[in-house]
Amino acid sequence: MSATPSKSDSQFDPDEDKLREECGVFGMSGVEDAANFVALGLHALQHRGHEAGGIVSYSESVGFQSARKSGYVRDNFTRASGMAHLPGPIAIGHVRYSTSGSKGATAIRDVQPFFGEFAMGGAAIAHNGNLTNARALRRDLVERGAIFQSSSDTECIIHLMARSFGKTIPDRMKDALRQVEGAFSIVAMTRHKLLGVRDPLGIRPLVLGKFKGAYVLSSETCGLDIIGAKFEREIEPGEMVVITKGKVESFRPFEPVRPRPCIFEYVYFSRPDSIIGGKSVYEVRREIGKQLAIEAPVEADMVCPVPDSGTPAAIGFAQQSGIPFEMGIVRNQYVGRTFIAPTAQIRDMGVRLKLNVPSSTASICPRAVN
Amino acid sequence: MSATPSKSDSQFDPDEDKLREECGVFGMSGVEDAANFVALGLHALQHRGHEAGGIVSYSESVGFQSARKSGYVRDNFTRASGMAHLPGPIAIGHVRYSTSGSKGATAIRDVQPFFGEFAMGGAAIAHNGNLTNARALRRDLVERGAIFQSSSDTECIIHLMARSFGKTIPDRMKDALRQVEGAFSIVAMTRHKLLGVRDPLGIRPLVLGKFKGAYVLSSETCGLDIIGAKFEREIEPGEMVVITKGKVESFRPFEPVRPRPCIFEYVYFSRPDSIIGGKSVYEVRREIGKQLAIEAPVEADMVCPVPDSGTPAAIGFAQQSGIPFEMGIVRNQYVGRTFIAPTAQIRDMGVRLKLNVPSSTASICPRAVN
Amino acid sequence: MSATPSKSDSQFDPDEDKLREECGVFGMSGVEDAANFVALGLHALQHRGHEAGGIVSYSESVGFQSARKSGYVRDNFTRASGMAHLPGPIAIGHVRYSTSGSKGATAIRDVQPFFGEFAMGGAAIAHNGNLTNARALRRDLVERGAIFQSSSDTECIIHLMARSFGKTIPDRMKDALRQVEGAFSIVAMTRHKLLGVRDPLGIRPLVLGKFKGAYVLSSETCGLDIIGAKFEREIEPGEMVVITKGKVESFRPFEPVRPRPCIFEYVYFSRPDSIIGGKSVYEVRREIGKQLAIEAPVEADMVCPVPDSGTPAAIGFAQQSGIPFEMGIVRNQYVGRTFIAPTAQIRDMGVRLKLNVPSSTASICPRAVN
Amino acid sequence: MSATPSKSDSQFDPDEDKLREECGVFGMSGVEDAANFVALGLHALQHRGHEAGGIVSYSESVGFQSARKSGYVRDNFTRASGMAHLPGPIAIGHVRYSTSGSKGATAIRDVQPFFGEFAMGGAAIAHNGNLTNARALRRDLVERGAIFQSSSDTECIIHLMARSFGKTIPDRMKDALRQVEGAFSIVAMTRHKLLGVRDPLGIRPLVLGKFKGAYVLSSETCGLDIIGAKFEREIEPGEMVVITKGKVESFRPFEPVRPRPCIFEYVYFSRPDSIIGGKSVYEVRREIGKQLAIEAPVEADMVCPVPDSGTPAAIGFAQQSGIPFEMGIVRNQYVGRTFIAPTAQIRDMGVRLKLNVPSSTASICPRAVN
Repeated sequence: MSATPSKSDSQFDPDEDKLREECGVFGMSGVEDAANFVALGLHALQHRGHEAGGIVSYSESVGFQSARKSGYVRDNFTRASGMAHLPGPIAIGHVRYSTSGSKGATAIRDVQPFFGEFAMGGAAIAHNGNLTNARALRRDLVERGAIFQSSSDTECIIHLMARSFGKTIPDRMKDALRQVEGAFSIVAMTRHKLLGVRDPLGIRPLVLGKFKGAYVLSSETCGLDIIGAKFEREIEPGEMVVITKGKVESFRPFEPVRPRPCIFEYVYFSRPDSIIGGKSVYEVRREIGKQLAIEAPVEADMVCPVPDSGTPAAIGFAQQSGIPFEMGIVRNQYVGRTFIAPTAQIRDMGVRLKLNVPSSTASICPRAVN
Repeated sequence: MSATPSKSDSQFDPDEDKLREECGVFGMSGVEDAANFVALGLHALQHRGHEAGGIVSYSESVGFQSARKSGYVRDNFTRASGMAHLPGPIAIGHVRYSTSGSKGATAIRDVQPFFGEFAMGGAAIAHNGNLTNARALRRDLVERGAIFQSSSDTECIIHLMARSFGKTIPDRMKDALRQVEGAFSIVAMTRHKLLGVRDPLGIRPLVLGKFKGAYVLSSETCGLDIIGAKFEREIEPGEMVVITKGKVESFRPFEPVRPRPCIFEYVYFSRPDSIIGGKSVYEVRREIGKQLAIEAPVEADMVCPVPDSGTPAAIGFAQQSGIPFEMGIVRNQYVGRTFIAPTAQIRDMGVRLKLNVPSSTASICPRAVN
Repeated sequence: MSATPSKSDSQFDPDEDKLREECGVFGMSGVEDAANFVALGLHALQHRGHEAGGIVSYSESVGFQSARKSGYVRDNFTRASGMAHLPGPIAIGHVRYSTSGSKGATAIRDVQPFFGEFAMGGAAIAHNGNLTNARALRRDLVERGAIFQSSSDTECIIHLMARSFGKTIPDRMKDALRQVEGAFSIVAMTRHKLLGVRDPLGIRPLVLGKFKGAYVLSSETCGLDIIGAKFEREIEPGEMVVITKGKVESFRPFEPVRPRPCIFEYVYFSRPDSIIGGKSVYEVRREIGKQLAIEAPVEADMVCPVPDSGTPAAIGFAQQSGIPFEMGIVRNQYVGRTFIAPTAQIRDMGVRLKLNVPSSTASICPRAVN
Repeated sequence: MSATPSKSDSQFDPDEDKLREECGVFGMSGVEDAANFVALGLHALQHRGHEAGGIVSYSESVGFQSARKSGYVRDNFTRASGMAHLPGPIAIGHVRYSTSGSKGATAIRDVQPFFGEFAMGGAAIAHNGNLTNARALRRDLVERGAIFQSSSDTECIIHLMARSFGKTIPDRMKDALRQVEGAFSIVAMTRHKLLGVRDPLGIRPLVLGKFKGAYVLSSETCGLDIIGAKFEREIEPGEMVVITKGKVESFRPFEPVRPRPCIFEYVYFSRPDSIIGGKSVYEVRREIGKQLAIEAPVEADMVCPVPDSGTPAAIGFAQQSGIPFEMGIVRNQYVGRTFIAPTAQIRDMGVRLKLNVPSSTASICPRAVN
């Protein structure tokens, strides 16, 4: 494969890499109306991307069904508003931020999971991560007649699979993923198989869970908790699992390398109640706060977090320093998460609409905040 | 007036009193596009009722305009989706929970502000509280030819105003309110006047603020903070203020009684960053936690709040007892507030969708939560 | 009653009288899911007003239910989109053009049927016609404390009923209608009664039909045909019928006058397949064309109608004159009726979008059209 | 190319050929906001398919934009509801019936125009007709890695273009169309070129018009009339025109055969005011009626058409036979066209809702209809 990633590909847009990091993926097979569970899982993963979401399911009676929408999971994927269109015992889903520049009607074409029909049947794929050689791959594929429907990196994987000589979908996915570079935690499905893959560096998380006889794949463990699934284990860096009728097979399609998971999962991306790499995100954040109190002590009346992701670190700082912990900044519960809003302007608005330091009234924490 | 409140009126439905307590009211006059500020104020007050909201504005060019909708303020009252229909320098708004049993299409008729055209011009009214003699009043009014459009207590006030012999809208409102019993914090408007009234017992809060030359009325001070308005003072129990072209007049239409403000404003209804009765809600809650630690000490590894309203009390308990404070229960930011959801079933669902104690994974707070 | 119609009332807006003429009313009782039949009847009457429509139904289980919407009957009142909300064995409906000036969100408040709760229970009313003393009545009612929700003449009738001392709804309606002046063909309902009334002049049509054991009221006979109901008779000028559990009572509440039905029902308003005043509208129009050929003969190659309302007259002209009849102007089936669109601008657009005389191509009727 | 059409391909579903015949295509270049003209053109062509429609436009500032929707042109493509998203001086559009079985959310993927990005830029295509070797082509393409997004024949053309070695889009379209068999009248566009093609048999119509300096392609001449464009000429069977900056080039990419246009265009599909093959559709239908009167004379009181497509033939029959022409069956203007509704059940409903022979009243044409 000639698609070596050139510098110009990965550095064309300095923001692109950062923005594409955060997504949530979830899949389940072996349970009635799997899409309902996927919707709950996506709801729990919504902090990884709340601009849009999608679900694909498969049932013998109506085949593959897909729903991809802008907005919150709770608004789009409730039973009343369309879950009935997503029947069957196997389904996968994806939540994401919006694509830069493709707001409005056309943005939907970038909402995952993507679906393609191959010679051997259809497959759907949901991807968290970004591919550093996507532009070069795309150029090569288009020159050879591939028609792209989206502006997403992920669609390259589908086209590489469609052109593979592999005899099974899992074989074709191995072929495809050996040609891409970068970060990928993937949940995919065929009519009867649920697939999970993590890139050799293990940049983005992916865990395996069990719910009665059914298997679950989720970006984070909080996706298992919401449906009451049992945590089995993490998918390991460089591992592919193929789940068929309640049986899990494990493959190692990639050359082994030393894993380099992304530190931002602990700092910001993941929910504090998730377990990443065997460690509680909450505890890691609290330890960071303690270490900060040791390395950079300050004299103060109180320690106030910027809620919500700063709270565990502030608790740690307060515990280590002995300075009282207080909630000096109040969060309006009726807005989404600041960081992942699509533009700087809305990010600024978001902060004003979301956080309040009571300034017009008697302040509750005079020195720390004002 | 014969409408003495009978026992049967106020005790017919034991849940009704509790459910009808919580609403948010906001009004502003003397600023361009007042409705935009009202929308922000309602957003800040949304914890008082997130099922529905409405805004009425008045401009010389298009007269009174009204928008009343189910759902969140952020979805209904943004510039794009209809603020252009609400022009003018004066506007009031209301947020509420849904009415029990009147879900769907017909529920809109119960969404405030209510509007009526009187002999001397129109008036709109937004009401937080419940009237204990509403049923008797309604029966009397219907017998005398009044046609009710809603099932709300508040509509009685409009009809009493329409039948008053008062020569001005404020006089008619005094007449009307002297005939009702119960709790009312009211924001109302005519074409050129903004009115605020609190019942003699001062059961629900209402504050006056100032934004440049304009005046603001809000259920809580957090509604002033979001638009950067300065806190002036509370409307006092039994006081009516009439704001006309930047001038505030104060009236005392009711017989004075000893105020009895509702303790639940401190415990649950109000936002922690609001000042109620001169006291920070956050500090009151923290003091409650401290007092609990004194009165009911326990031996424990950590103190974990049920977020979000329990957090200040848990902080106080931890400070008083010396037991470490930890966030052992994580809240999903993508759902609304539990308490005010309309049915028990949705309340249960809400809790499952909203809070997570990580059970399938290594717990972060083994003794306190499990 | 002092509400004598002053000149200024009826002449304030020269267009108002003309525009308010055309509406369609329909009611049915004694059949399961009466609202479904009402929806079909309104569909057949849509030529009398396609801008908005509404249905009110009553069932023991859920009481009065109402749906009032902008747009076509076929879009608003199908089973899927909400007929389930309108259960019960009795229902009435109304179709109308939009109100001048009240486009958009607020227009809905002018969509009939109107509903009011009286001391003796609720009643809904649908009205075709216009009241010449409506402004004076409205002024008097507002001075006495009535609160109007709409800008429609019809609401006066509801308020007059609410203030009547009559002991039954039919008695109150008689009281109310004796105080109004002008044109009214009314279909109304209480929980168990269906009412039909025509003003003493018989200006607008109203017919009674029978469907199995059930009774039907409709503006025109084409509303009976669509549901397969049998034509019983016209409601006579000045007659009120009250239908209770399959029994029809007839009253004469008004002082008798010589009827003066509106000629425009034959010329334009009614459908050609309706029978008005015992005469086929189609045949009346064809006879008008024959008479025109006698009174104003022309020499021509062909007679071309402007479709659709001009077609019967053109056929008559052709039959009388012996000049061949041709369809030289083609109508686009995907637009509504020209005449009743709300503004001159849209009326003009409507004609351009609706009718085509093929000018860029070889003409099919060279002399008659070009 | 191995894709010889097998018997099984074209005969798999006996209804498929018939149902896929009728669509409308329209394109325009060289005028500001071309999409607005395309919307008008599609409105005039809506009798060829009213279930769904789409428009693609191109402007230098925002590139290719697409809107594809279920429902009527007048509801989807007005200025208010989204025409602003379709800027630019070049646009094409398509109207169609729904696909059998793919109702609901997924049907949108079958709504044309289709769009693909090739190595040399994007192209959009709108197709009226059906390809007899589509199944075989699709199978071959999928085996070679093509990913299909729709179930439509037309998508084969896009994939064949993407894989062509042609150096320009028109060359690639020639390549692609030489490999398909069956009926195609196509309007396509690149960033700067508008293309029109008709299959060698000339099965479906396509005409060229001129509007000031701009060129127009339309299925029928009625699409020219609505925007006031001048009829230039028909695209000839087997011809491809490429319109670039106001210049029209003509190509003959196919081996010439004897044209065999579809007789149903005269009998049913086309509008009576269109000119097909140099003949007025209205006149052809009237002549058919005359010939019927000669070949199969009857004794009758009147000749009544089933409106609307039967009207010209009934006029011809009446003219030839001397029997009076009457409109005995009345059409409700508020429904769409019967023939092209998607299922037999809705077709039946459609007739009941649309046509009325007044049976419950004195009949206007006793012998002919009853």
